[in-house]
Parts: sequence; structure tokens; C-alpha cells
Amino acid sequence: MQGSGRRATRDKGQAESMRIAVVGAGSWGTALVHTLARGGSHDVALWARRPTVAAAMAATRHNPSYLTELELDRDIAITSEVEEAVRGAAIVLLAVPTHAMREVVGAAAGHLESGCVVVSAAKGFEEQSGMTMTAVVADVLGAGMRGRIAALSGPNIAIEVARGLPAASVVAGEGESAEMVRDACTGPAFRVYSTSDCIGVEYAGALKNIIAIAAGACDGMGVGENGKAAILTRGLAEIARLGIRAGASAMTFAGLAGLGDCVVTCASPYSRNRQLGEAIARGATLDEALAQIRMVVEGVNATRVAARLAADGDVDMPITREVHAVLFEGKAVREGLADLMSRDPAEELHGLVSGEQPAR
Amino acid sequence: MQGSGRRATRDKGQAESMRIAVVGAGSWGTALVHTLARGGSHDVALWARRPTVAAAMAATRHNPSYLTELELDRDIAITSEVEEAVRGAAIVLLAVPTHAMREVVGAAAGHLESGCVVVSAAKGFEEQSGMTMTAVVADVLGAGMRGRIAALSGPNIAIEVARGLPAASVVAGEGESAEMVRDACTGPAFRVYSTSDCIGVEYAGALKNIIAIAAGACDGMGVGENGKAAILTRGLAEIARLGIRAGASAMTFAGLAGLGDCVVTCASPYSRNRQLGEAIARGATLDEALAQIRMVVEGVNATRVAARLAADGDVDMPITREVHAVLFEGKAVREGLADLMSRDPAEELHGLVSGEQPAR
Repeated sequence: MQGSGRRATRDKGQAESMRIAVVGAGSWGTALVHTLARGGSHDVALWARRPTVAAAMAATRHNPSYLTELELDRDIAITSEVEEAVRGAAIVLLAVPTHAMREVVGAAAGHLESGCVVVSAAKGFEEQSGMTMTAVVADVLGAGMRGRIAALSGPNIAIEVARGLPAASVVAGEGESAEMVRDACTGPAFRVYSTSDCIGVEYAGALKNIIAIAAGACDGMGVGENGKAAILTRGLAEIARLGIRAGASAMTFAGLAGLGDCVVTCASPYSRNRQLGEAIARGATLDEALAQIRMVVEGVNATRVAARLAADGDVDMPITREVHAVLFEGKAVREGLADLMSRDPAEELHGLVSGEQPAR
Repeated sequence: MQGSGRRATRDKGQAESMRIAVVGAGSWGTALVHTLARGGSHDVALWARRPTVAAAMAATRHNPSYLTELELDRDIAITSEVEEAVRGAAIVLLAVPTHAMREVVGAAAGHLESGCVVVSAAKGFEEQSGMTMTAVVADVLGAGMRGRIAALSGPNIAIEVARGLPAASVVAGEGESAEMVRDACTGPAFRVYSTSDCIGVEYAGALKNIIAIAAGACDGMGVGENGKAAILTRGLAEIARLGIRAGASAMTFAGLAGLGDCVVTCASPYSRNRQLGEAIARGATLDEALAQIRMVVEGVNATRVAARLAADGDVDMPITREVHAVLFEGKAVREGLADLMSRDPAEELHGLVSGEQPAR
């Protein structure tokens, strides 16, 4: 077999040095800023919400709460002033929880460089509105940002990325913006692909957490690997149907932001969404399971939003329906699983191919 | 969320009782025949190659070599005469290794009922010709069988299916044939979907073993979960490109036969293909790794065939290329991985979307 791979030209990244701001110092923001700084090509800044945390990080070069063992590069400018973080930045990466996105973008709004690209690195919907994160960003920043808002998503366990283990991700946005972010963020161990399907990437990143809850429930029930793989596969198919209804490309769900992230989330013992499903299958109530995990479990909100969107769009989402019934309607996991298995067999790709009609 | 699921009508299977022959008494054939017999709707026969094995199974109701703990239903007719097994069968399921397919179908050829559907349950190519299993079956049985040859594939670890744990699979073939097999084989714990994309299902089932070798190599190198998920995702994308070139639908690779089977195979400690990759990453040669595993590792042959097909069709398959180099050209796993990570970043779905044109 002849090699015909495209080789990276080594000095490409260095040739286009720029300032990149990472907004948010949770585990993903910290991993991102560390990875970008290690690349050595760019001038990198980090914003932490709390002044005491920013000061401690600036002094000790360690995040006191997340990925605490990482030693952060001395050249990272760490601040709790959003204005200072985003000043001069060609790319602003927003690594904040979904519930904080609107407020944080609002604070940054007056200080962005003209021409900069703003990238959401959060996975989920705004709870009340059901909006994607890039829609929230666009809503806050207005028409002047058209074509310069993107989303980054993929199978990226933060600690692995921070340690420099190989990982791939995908950035979605309009042509030049997505390519600019892709080229700027790709490094020796972190490969970023580009796509124009922003809705697909964001729906996939948010909705895969529902499937992770279902996969966790399978673990809790001792269902086995075949059943879990079937849940993952059929789950991706149904979240793709919802995405297609919203304008996404079906294939995006087979990519890094869909399949890739779903595989990592469904397999990882550390996934909070998977843990939640497992705890409930073992008899915990939703409140008990959330109390055990003691962190935001994004899939719970995503299940609410997806159930609403599926009902509005008349999209068939049997796994989401069962997760919703188990989380919010007191249905037993065993019963939900039995109901999934008793449906009539069907065409595998209904609603995904042959005319791309939405499933009913 | 309102329930709108399709419910199975209980007596559907029973209403259409028929004879089904399972040809091949390896682990998958044994699991299949056991599952069909347990369903209770059909008259079931099993063919074992060796007369001594058939006699032992008929007497003891246990397979002496595979899934030995299973007690097989008394009503299963067990024989080493192909003619006896397939006589009167409306469905013939071929669960033999790929290298035996041509010969076994040749032996059955004169004895098939007119109108019966013949289903390959093997995953791989014929080594010399590179033909899919349904193509081999069609080649042997001739034009009279047109429209009545199908393929069954999916994430089906045999022992889990045999134990009655939930599993799903997909049968590919022309409309009525595929639907007939789907409805006949679906039982309380084994759900079968149908599709018309036979090439996609067979390419996916065969080629996913290459990705499993690569995933095993990741395990052996301690690459982490992000990297393994990326290999799985990008691997599915590249085998889909080859499939599309051969006429498959891209979405099939996101289904049970592609993604689903790939997830199970890449994760399972028991997968021989995954084991092979892991052993080689830890320093074994191909011969040493094969000697350790002591069974046929289908992915080795699939890598040879895929490399040939990719070269012929000018399809970009970077992971397959590296697996080929590691298996047959003495390349170090570390070097193969580094070469994968140093490629220029690109459009995520190149060759898969934008007009669904085949990759070139």
C-alpha cells in the first residue's frame, strides 16, 4: 500500500502566531490553555472567574481546584478581568458551564477585537430556551459577529489532553473561521478537524449525555456489551434524527463530536452521566444519584430539552423517552429496557437515509 | 414526553412458523441456533462439519468445543449432513469461517428449497478474490438465487447472545428477503433490524477488525481513551470511504454492523483482533502474536484485502495503511501512531458528505 498521507508542515503554526484567550478555568479550560501554551506558537491568556483563584494560579502555576497536578506554563497570562483576557485575542475559547455562558459572553462583549473568532467549548443547551451555545453567543453579540462564532467538541477527557496524550476534536463554524481555529489549536498531540455543521456538532455534544445515562443504566443492570453497544448505536441514530430535524448533517453524528464523544462517555468510569444512569439502575432516585455525584450532570437537563424538542418536532426518540420516564416519571429501569426490546423491528436507518425524511 | 413506540404483536413470529437451518457449529452458529430454538416459533436444524461432533451434540445436547456450558434444546435437529440440515428450510444461516464459505455453500447448493433465503453470518472477505461473502454465495448458487441472499452482522458477542442478554443485529438484503429474516430471527432478547445495504453491512463487518487491531495497539501503547475513541471514529470514517466507493451507504457504517460492532470489538478484552494489536504494540511480531492467540484473526486478512482495494480505488485510508505497515512491513507501532498524528488537519467528513460522492 502506498503512503499518500498529507504531512503537516512543521512551521505552519509558528508562522501564524496569535493571541488566544481561554475563558473559564474549570478542568476543560485548564487543559485547553495548558495544551495551547505547550504548543509554544501562540500568546495565551486564561480567565478565571474568581480573583482569588486567578491570583493563586498566577502565583503558584497550579489550578487549586481542577487538574491540580498540572504545572502551568509561566507565559500564560492569568486574570479574573475578562477585558484583560480577551484584549488582542484573535480567538476566544469559551470553556464555561452552559448556565454561565450568556452572562460571561455579555461581560466580554464590549472588549472583543474586531475580527476575532469566538468559540464555545461547552456541551449542552441553555435550559429555558433550549438554545445551543453558539446561538446564545450570537444572541448576545449580535449580527456583527456573523460568520465568526464556532463550537469545539469531541472525545476529550480533560486530564488526558492536559497530559499530552493523543486526542482529536472538531471545530464547527463557517469556512474560514473554523479553519483558522483548527489550524491554530492543532498541536503535536491534539488534532482538530473542521466542519461547517455547527448544529450537528452542538446537538451531538449535548445529546450524547442522554445516551451515556442509558449506557450507565445498562451497566447497572448487567446487560452486557452487546446491549450497551446497541444502546449506543441506536442512541446515536435517534439523536441524529433530532439533529437532522434541526438542520444538522446525519454524518456529523458519526464523527468525533457524536460517535467519538459517545464512545468515551459511555465507557468512562468517570463520566458523571454514565455514573448517574448506573446509580439509578441500582435503585437510587434521581435526587439520591445527583447527591452522590455532587456535580452538574448535563445529561439531566439535556434529557428535558430533547424530550421537548422531540415532541415539538414529532421525532421518534425511544431511548430518550425511556430515560425521561426513568428520570422524571418514576418508571423502573427494568421496565424501560423491556419496552425498548419489545418494539417491532424496523428498517435500521429510518429517518436517516432514503430522502432524509424526519422519522415519525 | 408522549410514548409513540411501535409495539410488537406477540404472536407475529408464531404465526409464521418455518424451518431454519444454521450451518456451522462454531460459537456463533451455536449461539444462533440456541437463540432461535429458545424463541420456540420455528423448527430449527444445525449442521456441524464433523460427524463425531454432530453425534456428540445430538447425544449430550452440549457443543464439545464452543460455548460448552450451553444446554441445547432437544428439538434442534443436529446433523453432519448438509442435505439433511437444509431440507425444507425457508432460511439457511451460514455461520462458517470465511475461508470455508465457498466449499460449504457448494455442498448445500443442490439441496436448497426453492424460494429459501440464504444468509451469510460470517464477517470477512474471501482472501484471494477479495469478494464479500454474499458475492461468494451468489457466485456459487447462480442467478436463480437473485434477491434471496442476505447478510447478518452486528455487535453480537456469541456467549452474551446465547445467554439471552439483550442484543441487536442487522440483516441486509433485498426488501422482502431481509424483512423475512428480520421477522423470523427477532426474539425477546435478540432484535434484528433490516436494511437494503448489503455491501455496507459486509464491508463494515469485515473492515472493523482492522480498526480493532489499531485500537488494541493503542491499548498496548497506553494511549488513553481519547486517542482510542479518535482511532475508532476516524477508522469508521475511512472504512466508510472504502465502502462508499464500492456502492455502500455511508450511514450503514454508523449503524449496528459498523459503529456497534466496532465499539464491542474495540472494547472487548476477548476480541482476537484487539488482542493482536495489543500484543504487537507490546513488542511481539505478527507470527508471535498469532501463535499466542492460536485462532484465526480475521483482521489480518482484512487488512491485506483493504489495502489492495484502497490502492485500486485510490481511497485515503491512513489507519489501515499504518496497520498494514506495522503488520507486514516491520514498522514500529510508535512510528505509525506518530505519522497518524502529524498529518495536516482537514475537513472531518471529507469523502463522506457534500453530495455523497464516493471518495477519490
